[in-house]
Amino acid sequence: MRRQNKYSVAFQGERGAYSEIAARSFFGNKIELLPSETFNLVFKRVETSVAGFGVIPIENSLAGSIHQNYDLLLKHRLRIIGEQNLRISHNLIGNASSSLSAIRRVFSHPQALMQCQNNIARLRNVEIIPTYDTAGSVKKIKEEGIRDGGAIASELAARIYGMKILKRQIQDNSENFTRFLVLARTKELPKSANKTSLVYSVENLPGALFRSLSVFALRDIDLYKIESRPLHGKPWEYLFYVDFAGRPEDSNCQNAIKHLSEIATFMKILGSYKRDTRLT
Amino acid sequence: MRRQNKYSVAFQGERGAYSEIAARSFFGNKIELLPSETFNLVFKRVETSVAGFGVIPIENSLAGSIHQNYDLLLKHRLRIIGEQNLRISHNLIGNASSSLSAIRRVFSHPQALMQCQNNIARLRNVEIIPTYDTAGSVKKIKEEGIRDGGAIASELAARIYGMKILKRQIQDNSENFTRFLVLARTKELPKSANKTSLVYSVENLPGALFRSLSVFALRDIDLYKIESRPLHGKPWEYLFYVDFAGRPEDSNCQNAIKHLSEIATFMKILGSYKRDTRLT
Repeated sequence: MRRQNKYSVAFQGERGAYSEIAARSFFGNKIELLPSETFNLVFKRVETSVAGFGVIPIENSLAGSIHQNYDLLLKHRLRIIGEQNLRISHNLIGNASSSLSAIRRVFSHPQALMQCQNNIARLRNVEIIPTYDTAGSVKKIKEEGIRDGGAIASELAARIYGMKILKRQIQDNSENFTRFLVLARTKELPKSANKTSLVYSVENLPGALFRSLSVFALRDIDLYKIESRPLHGKPWEYLFYVDFAGRPEDSNCQNAIKHLSEIATFMKILGSYKRDTRLT
Repeated sequence: MRRQNKYSVAFQGERGAYSEIAARSFFGNKIELLPSETFNLVFKRVETSVAGFGVIPIENSLAGSIHQNYDLLLKHRLRIIGEQNLRISHNLIGNASSSLSAIRRVFSHPQALMQCQNNIARLRNVEIIPTYDTAGSVKKIKEEGIRDGGAIASELAARIYGMKILKRQIQDNSENFTRFLVLARTKELPKSANKTSLVYSVENLPGALFRSLSVFALRDIDLYKIESRPLHGKPWEYLFYVDFAGRPEDSNCQNAIKHLSEIATFMKILGSYKRDTRLT
């Protein structure tokens, strides 16, 4: 029988992933952590009640949106019930007996490697090896006892695996934030929800996107974000993901959604939740 | 001294890359090909006149935009002078002495691997190995004589490296198109340009995006695409990349651009060119 634990949280990556830090920031430290190999598995675990909640990254302030997760939000029947902004601080991590000058190989997720490329280039004779996971790279160089290898990951990952931080703040740009979404099966609205996310498509006609945005503009509703994603099987047609300042109990929010449903050929509400205004 | 050859075309990847096929479709076969390791190098080679033209992918109908190239368009002073749509047809390619049942490792770019994941899963006991390049993976398994390895790449790549196609049409979804842009240094307008691309930002105020799109909607100008990218150093602020039906000689196009420049805090015209309506 599957366990149903309100405070079990699934996230992609190994223990020490940035998503784990986001989950702890949102829920506190008394949660059961369910590291998951893929984003898809995070969604599945929440959908099948193996996990009570899922935490996924949706957008990085340097790299942009994590499109795979937009696609998964569309596909799965989960609700966004919260968001968590996190400052990303990358570290170069090695085995206890290693040192910065001994590093000849740097392992990490391509995104993290890209965010540190100038600083990595300053290390001499270093080979860059992309992996699927930041914290997983720390685990790898520990388990395989790679002495000349460093992994780029969180301080938490270094602590969890008992590894040494060879260089802190190795990212090139300090203004590096990731926005995470908290997912659940519930349709109950979180308290003090003041932000709503939805996805829709419109007919492929001149002015259709403009008309669809008018449902917000005509009601002075602030758009926080708009993101387009290709519609599979319909080349060069798009889905639009919109985040807006909408309290679900307010009539202007309800009216905007009703108005949009007249214009859109497809619409799905992804959730209403409390906006995280820290770090913004 | 640097060569200045009108028909030399830089593209990312090894010989046989999909970008090479796009370049040949656009310019014909009598061009000098300049395979380049990175997208950044493609831009640099055109900017410094090492290449006359560059060809870069900008958008795939399944995966979405290639954001790195949007960022590079902003950074470099090149003009878009053309576009080329290409149907992507992936093949599993091996050494001449290999066979489909012998394959235990599949090499390719992560994007290509993702587009073939269901079909790869049908092969038994196969390890998936991400690389930087589709055609480069064919070159690799040839040069290293990897008998149990297959690479996912174009038919052209198989031909160029004298390798065997083990399975054609290995992609999961046949509606797979990539749109490529052709770049040059010139500010001369291509003949019959009927599409214009530009990038802009607006103040972070309610309704600002809507107002900016009104410059097109109020003139019945069709938007083909809108894409947002984060503004580096300004978390959660965005640049908007817009493609619209604009003939640069038409007054309504000129008026829309003038109107947008009143509203935008930043604006850059990326080019006007003839729209490729094939495959759309």
